[in-house]
Amino acid sequence: MRNFKMVLQYEGSRYQGWQKQESTGNTIQGKLETLLSKLAGTTIEVHGSGRTDAGVHAYGQVANFKMETDKTPEELFDYINQYLPEDIAVIKLEEVPERFHSRLNAKRKIYRYRVMNSGLPHVFARRYTYQVPEKLDMDAMKAAADKMCGEHDFQAFTSAKKGKKSTVRRVDSIKIERVGDEIWFTFFGNGFLYHMVRIMMGTLLCVGKGELEVDNIPLILDSKDRQQAGPLVPAKGLALMEVFYE
Amino acid sequence: MRNFKMVLQYEGSRYQGWQKQESTGNTIQGKLETLLSKLAGTTIEVHGSGRTDAGVHAYGQVANFKMETDKTPEELFDYINQYLPEDIAVIKLEEVPERFHSRLNAKRKIYRYRVMNSGLPHVFARRYTYQVPEKLDMDAMKAAADKMCGEHDFQAFTSAKKGKKSTVRRVDSIKIERVGDEIWFTFFGNGFLYHMVRIMMGTLLCVGKGELEVDNIPLILDSKDRQQAGPLVPAKGLALMEVFYE
Repeated sequence: MRNFKMVLQYEGSRYQGWQKQESTGNTIQGKLETLLSKLAGTTIEVHGSGRTDAGVHAYGQVANFKMETDKTPEELFDYINQYLPEDIAVIKLEEVPERFHSRLNAKRKIYRYRVMNSGLPHVFARRYTYQVPEKLDMDAMKAAADKMCGEHDFQAFTSAKKGKKSTVRRVDSIKIERVGDEIWFTFFGNGFLYHMVRIMMGTLLCVGKGELEVDNIPLILDSKDRQQAGPLVPAKGLALMEVFYE
Repeated sequence: MRNFKMVLQYEGSRYQGWQKQESTGNTIQGKLETLLSKLAGTTIEVHGSGRTDAGVHAYGQVANFKMETDKTPEELFDYINQYLPEDIAVIKLEEVPERFHSRLNAKRKIYRYRVMNSGLPHVFARRYTYQVPEKLDMDAMKAAADKMCGEHDFQAFTSAKKGKKSTVRRVDSIKIERVGDEIWFTFFGNGFLYHMVRIMMGTLLCVGKGELEVDNIPLILDSKDRQQAGPLVPAKGLALMEVFYE
């Protein structure tokens, strides 16, 4: 069986997220599986590096699928892009060893959250940014972000119910920078729990507005209590930028 | 009568252009006039610096309107933005002398045309760029652009039928630069005829692909014949960037 790795871009606005659902075909994974299964004449499963929620974008999601085919990677690339809707695209496709798995082998991921920090409406950025008109204390947010870095139990920063699975993750760094009227928050880590980036963002914005102190961050982590962290910010500001492998 | 000048941003994709039409309300001017007339309780006319065609975007269209009102410019700004759809926004609003007219007083305009010059699909730029995968000769396009600059009769570069109105315009400069996978063509001039930028663009791209010689440009200008110039490129790559006054 041949194994193919794809790098994908998508604008999440119209979709109910990455993962296929029984009730609807309007997911990225669903679109890809439908068109590849049609090509193969048999059911093809597409494995993503991880789920992205409804409304979240991707500049570099990675997925793989196994298929018996005579087509070259270039032919598959052209075929898939021809049938994908214009808000999803494959930007790279290559054949990889059969043991490669985009989720199990992922070592590191980058997510970016874009905040529009001006009082003005922004027509061209509206789908990709969350509007926060208030003045934000950059130094305080950077200090709070530093306290989130490292290996921690992020139970307080996920919407997932407490279960058997580990909620320990390692956040390597969080870069916060002004880019024009926007503030970009870039998260590097070995993996992120359900809603984790968006709850970390809601918490950092509370610090930026002076509603939370930097010293609260370790207490929130220790509490393992979702109620102690900040709110979940909207999906549209978030994008999966890149996934790294060995 | 008080006179107000607005700077507007819009994504043209959903609209049939700037200018209101009898048959449909789906124009930028139409949207603005409807909401301002409702506020004023009487018909308000909105004068743009010029028309933009269906599908063309604006980062800095200028328009003015006259109205009897007790509202401050800040209040008008908030009112208008509150009722505009999210793909149109006022980014500046100020009171100006009664004699100010956004079209008649405009001295200079900047348009930008964005070409996506890679074979790859670009999900996030698709609404704002025209995809040209072929290799383009930057030096030849720059030389051809230079030959278009200056004061000329641009009859060959407009879709407008020959009439009594002058088709002489002055193009001050055309800047051509690579920006990542894109090539940006930025046009500075004192005014542009119907479809003029898009036909100049079609002609420059012919030169870039080697289908036309640089020396053809003066001949095309002299011919005053639309058939001699290149094709009309799609609207979605074009944006009105800025309008200058005294």
